[in-house]
Amino acid sequence: MTATIINGREIAKEIRSKITMDVQQLKKKYQKEPLVITIVIGENLSSELYLKLRNTACIEVGITSEILRFDANVSEATILQTIQDLNNDPSVHGIFIQYPVAPHLSVNKLMQCVAAKKDVEGFNPENLGRTLVGDEVLVPCTPLSVLTILQHEQIQLQGKDVVIVNHSNIVGKPLAALLLNRNATVSIAHVFTKNLKAYSSNADILITGAGVKNLITKDHIKNKAIVVDVGIIETKDGVCGDVDFESVKEKAAVITPVPGGVGPVTIACALSNMVKTYQKCVEDK
Amino acid sequence: MTATIINGREIAKEIRSKITMDVQQLKKKYQKEPLVITIVIGENLSSELYLKLRNTACIEVGITSEILRFDANVSEATILQTIQDLNNDPSVHGIFIQYPVAPHLSVNKLMQCVAAKKDVEGFNPENLGRTLVGDEVLVPCTPLSVLTILQHEQIQLQGKDVVIVNHSNIVGKPLAALLLNRNATVSIAHVFTKNLKAYSSNADILITGAGVKNLITKDHIKNKAIVVDVGIIETKDGVCGDVDFESVKEKAAVITPVPGGVGPVTIACALSNMVKTYQKCVEDK
Repeated sequence: MTATIINGREIAKEIRSKITMDVQQLKKKYQKEPLVITIVIGENLSSELYLKLRNTACIEVGITSEILRFDANVSEATILQTIQDLNNDPSVHGIFIQYPVAPHLSVNKLMQCVAAKKDVEGFNPENLGRTLVGDEVLVPCTPLSVLTILQHEQIQLQGKDVVIVNHSNIVGKPLAALLLNRNATVSIAHVFTKNLKAYSSNADILITGAGVKNLITKDHIKNKAIVVDVGIIETKDGVCGDVDFESVKEKAAVITPVPGGVGPVTIACALSNMVKTYQKCVEDK
Repeated sequence: MTATIINGREIAKEIRSKITMDVQQLKKKYQKEPLVITIVIGENLSSELYLKLRNTACIEVGITSEILRFDANVSEATILQTIQDLNNDPSVHGIFIQYPVAPHLSVNKLMQCVAAKKDVEGFNPENLGRTLVGDEVLVPCTPLSVLTILQHEQIQLQGKDVVIVNHSNIVGKPLAALLLNRNATVSIAHVFTKNLKAYSSNADILITGAGVKNLITKDHIKNKAIVVDVGIIETKDGVCGDVDFESVKEKAAVITPVPGGVGPVTIACALSNMVKTYQKCVEDK
């Protein structure tokens, strides 16, 4: 029996229609145009693709999105000052920084600088700390996307054995918090893990975001597992994820494809966070 | 062969002597007396014991410690106003809230209210978020104590299979972050975990803080495991931890006793955080 294949584009569409209505109502109520600014430093092909998709999505739901571009060798001081100016500008309701940034820039400093209420990505320490303790206000978009998919498929989390293959600040760690907040048993594996298969093959729910093609084969998963693929790898044949989709889908109960799985829902979650920051900024909550 | 038994009191003593010297130098430099205030709401026998031990430790290292007591039924508004006043008082360099607090008080609101630079416990979302991303400034005392013990015993963390039995906001979740920041593979188990033994028996390092006597027996651990017991259970025969110490010490490589293990080091870590908040407040960093 083949797994249920999650249609991320369909889920994203549902979320976008709800957001379109919310934005309409809020614009009427606030009499203000929601505006989000994205800071782009240097050039990065996959960032450009993502930016384009997000921009299209913003237009669809009625949010104005503008991009501020900087040279790859821009100084940290210039970026921090730009963020401060955006923090202080009442016409701006959300700030994105397009990651990855050049290595001479401190990611932690940039994340700390974005005002918590304009922090669309949920990376500001205050928002991350709130996510950690279950006071989930602005949650990072990729972890939120995974949670949204699991909830959309009505997958119970409490007591489930969950394995996350990614321990980054923007995916693995906040995602672990979201799942612990829902009483899952959570293991976080990564490149330093001695025996990945020992973990993955025990998972009721396996979420992988290592960026390694075919990292997860059918030998890595439990029968009837739920497999969520956060990996995005560009190959000459197009984009793929961590999961050997064709073999794994024969063994899993549920699986997300790449492309068309987590990605579109992540963009929808970014829109949903934009609505939250818009509300926070206008209502000054 | 019996395990190495960690002497937490000895480690705590080492930390306190270093802190004593630091405090002396800082007092000379700043010409200000370090003052920390503890807010105690209602009465709780084990809190009182802990408070007494911490107070003695403060006196030993040269930090002034004062207690503000409130009735168990005090209003949330009163406590929040008190915290605000302490935040604004330049003579106060650190604020503790003695947990647990009465259920009519929102723990999250109290934690959010304490100014980040006076947050001795590291529970303010900003400090927790920084801990999550590896920008460890003010780290919660119990997780910091566990890390301090592991580092004191020169136990390598990268790539190790670590199991934490506790998923609370003040122990398990920040501790998981500390260990992930050092590239351990981390599993977080708790009361909803289906098969604790499957996790614990795979752990190179097992850290347990469930508050359940004899939860961990020798059947639960791997040969030569490192076992850190964060549990504190009061019984008629005195205090004990989660671990069946007598049987487990015959199988483990390293073990912390209760009492005399994690507890004293946690108090020393609280002192160490007080020095940090003192520096932050005076230098306004």
